[in-house]
Amino acid sequence: MSVTFAQGFSAAGVEAGISAVAGKKDLALVVNNGPLDAAAGVFTSNRFCAAPVQWTRSIIADGHVKAVILNSGGANACTGQAGYEQSQATARRVAELLDVAPEDIAVCSTGLIGELLPLDNVLAGAGAAFAALDDTAEAGADASHAIMTTDTKPKTVEIEGDGYRIGGMVKGSGMIAPQLATMLSVITTDAVVTAGQAQAALLAAVDTSFNRIDVDGCQSTNDTVLLLASGASGVEPDPDEFNAMVAQACASLARQIIGDGEGASHDIRISVTGATSVDAALACGRAVAASNLLKCAISGNDPNWGRIVSSIGTVPASVAPYDADKVTVDVNGVRICENGGAGRDRSEVDMTPREVHIDIDLNAGDAEATVWTDDLTHEYVHINADYES
Amino acid sequence: MSVTFAQGFSAAGVEAGISAVAGKKDLALVVNNGPLDAAAGVFTSNRFCAAPVQWTRSIIADGHVKAVILNSGGANACTGQAGYEQSQATARRVAELLDVAPEDIAVCSTGLIGELLPLDNVLAGAGAAFAALDDTAEAGADASHAIMTTDTKPKTVEIEGDGYRIGGMVKGSGMIAPQLATMLSVITTDAVVTAGQAQAALLAAVDTSFNRIDVDGCQSTNDTVLLLASGASGVEPDPDEFNAMVAQACASLARQIIGDGEGASHDIRISVTGATSVDAALACGRAVAASNLLKCAISGNDPNWGRIVSSIGTVPASVAPYDADKVTVDVNGVRICENGGAGRDRSEVDMTPREVHIDIDLNAGDAEATVWTDDLTHEYVHINADYES
Repeated sequence: MSVTFAQGFSAAGVEAGISAVAGKKDLALVVNNGPLDAAAGVFTSNRFCAAPVQWTRSIIADGHVKAVILNSGGANACTGQAGYEQSQATARRVAELLDVAPEDIAVCSTGLIGELLPLDNVLAGAGAAFAALDDTAEAGADASHAIMTTDTKPKTVEIEGDGYRIGGMVKGSGMIAPQLATMLSVITTDAVVTAGQAQAALLAAVDTSFNRIDVDGCQSTNDTVLLLASGASGVEPDPDEFNAMVAQACASLARQIIGDGEGASHDIRISVTGATSVDAALACGRAVAASNLLKCAISGNDPNWGRIVSSIGTVPASVAPYDADKVTVDVNGVRICENGGAGRDRSEVDMTPREVHIDIDLNAGDAEATVWTDDLTHEYVHINADYES
Repeated sequence: MSVTFAQGFSAAGVEAGISAVAGKKDLALVVNNGPLDAAAGVFTSNRFCAAPVQWTRSIIADGHVKAVILNSGGANACTGQAGYEQSQATARRVAELLDVAPEDIAVCSTGLIGELLPLDNVLAGAGAAFAALDDTAEAGADASHAIMTTDTKPKTVEIEGDGYRIGGMVKGSGMIAPQLATMLSVITTDAVVTAGQAQAALLAAVDTSFNRIDVDGCQSTNDTVLLLASGASGVEPDPDEFNAMVAQACASLARQIIGDGEGASHDIRISVTGATSVDAALACGRAVAASNLLKCAISGNDPNWGRIVSSIGTVPASVAPYDADKVTVDVNGVRICENGGAGRDRSEVDMTPREVHIDIDLNAGDAEATVWTDDLTHEYVHINADYES
């Protein structure tokens, strides 16, 4: 289903010869058929942000986007003025096809950093995608396939609201870290909302979803999350419900990224409670999520709490006040660290499930936060030692 | 040679049955025979600091240490009051043997976090080490072997000054990150220096050596660097020369840690020039050193500059002002990134040497800094997925 679940959207995914992988769909097009064209976007904070990010950030500033073209097989990052002109030319081609202004076309790219795209293939692919546009579930699925790189499966979401719908897709598997996670995501809704409403909902949703996952601590140059509203349902949603549903869509997509993290054999949920503030809880959770040693231990099915507390111990007291002698750690429900020292034996922990729950209680306050990460496996090293396309 | 290179020191390394590895020397003793007993120490900033760190930090405050006992096979970290009493009992035993006060005995431990030591073995081992004390090169070598954990080789340094000597040993291979690097180090000198002089020299030296290496971004609970001065040479060194020599000793030991990083197949030197401040250069260097993606690429002999600049791009402009369009990156002397974009072809880079040089010019100022890291290999994952002792 993906982006076509919401009314007023058509999509396509085609093979345009951009990716080095023969036979892979590598170009997606998502068109908002209206009546509205409200749009919101959140982008990478990386200072080497890619040409398509620069283009899209600039054209979305007015709150209007008619279509998004996305390619895998090349990030068009660190490509200078020539790269920017490629994004611009791509937008111009889609604008011609749809008979709208180039400034209404968002562009996203993902793949290897530092190389220009095969522009002729992109432009020809845009034509093929335009010809294939449809509002079927299959067309949405094609789009979600076309944006995959090291992803092993497409990631989509469909949520039914009170008279309106939200659909979405995301790609991302490696180079995933706040802020943002490394990925491209397009979320669509047929609710009647303004660009301002969409932006507020998206910012809040991203903060508790894509910004709380970390596969490998590496932040991309191309991250983009777009929320497009067609208004095709004719329904003006309750603002709180709409915000909650956008948050739910983002959380689902973020969780799917972790579920498909490069080489991962365990999805790890790290919940920090008893913190003096959400920021304190987040800082502790992120420190644990960033520990290569812990992530290796989990891949070896070892609930090594020493590597958990030594990670928490790197967070400055000014950021997260707590007393090391009062910290407890449960892994999959077994309290293996009590009062900062050994608790129940780690052999009691069942590490067979793919999902591992690490629950840390700082016993210092009432705030809490949850972050997600993956384990670090041989396969991650293999993928990233050999990945070139 | 190790710690016995400087006059006035004797040492021993014995098998005390602490380590799970049969036949491994696991207890070292280093004794300062005077006439001076000036001492300086630098310790982990981890808030879950181990019992021996708490003990040694407290007893070294007066600037006097007569001996250091070090064990591998157990970190005695996160072991609460019982762990602290083990460190204290160990110091008391060594003090009895040497007929000095327990408050003159430093204690260091390394190994698994969260378990108490087999204290009887430690105390019996202290007696055996005392009986084996000698000032020979072999005795120094034994001590440097006894502190190894996942280290594959002992790491020592010997430097000849103007009438005096500096010797040292270090252990450390994984859980290595600023601040400090994860390790135990004992450096000895027969120069006539005060504890204050020693502390100043050690702090400055650590700042540019152990605090600029990063194997895996993980900070330990047990890091300790001690500098002991016997005064046995009778020579009062030129202060600047002494500082430089201590820095040289620390730099050599730190470099050896990188050379023996867990599973590493490449030692990576990251030099950042053209920064507006040393802190800016360091922040950029450390961001690159922390990139799992880059470290995997290097293990696959791929000089992936996209992963270098995307790491630099995560450093906030407030910390390191620079213009992304002016950054250059050379790998092993080939400028593969020019003005923030592609430069010469990456295939021109010879990646066969173990040592890889990444030279980043921010073109924003005159400050520079160098940090070292290792690549991320299958072997690192193997060691840390299976390590339990």
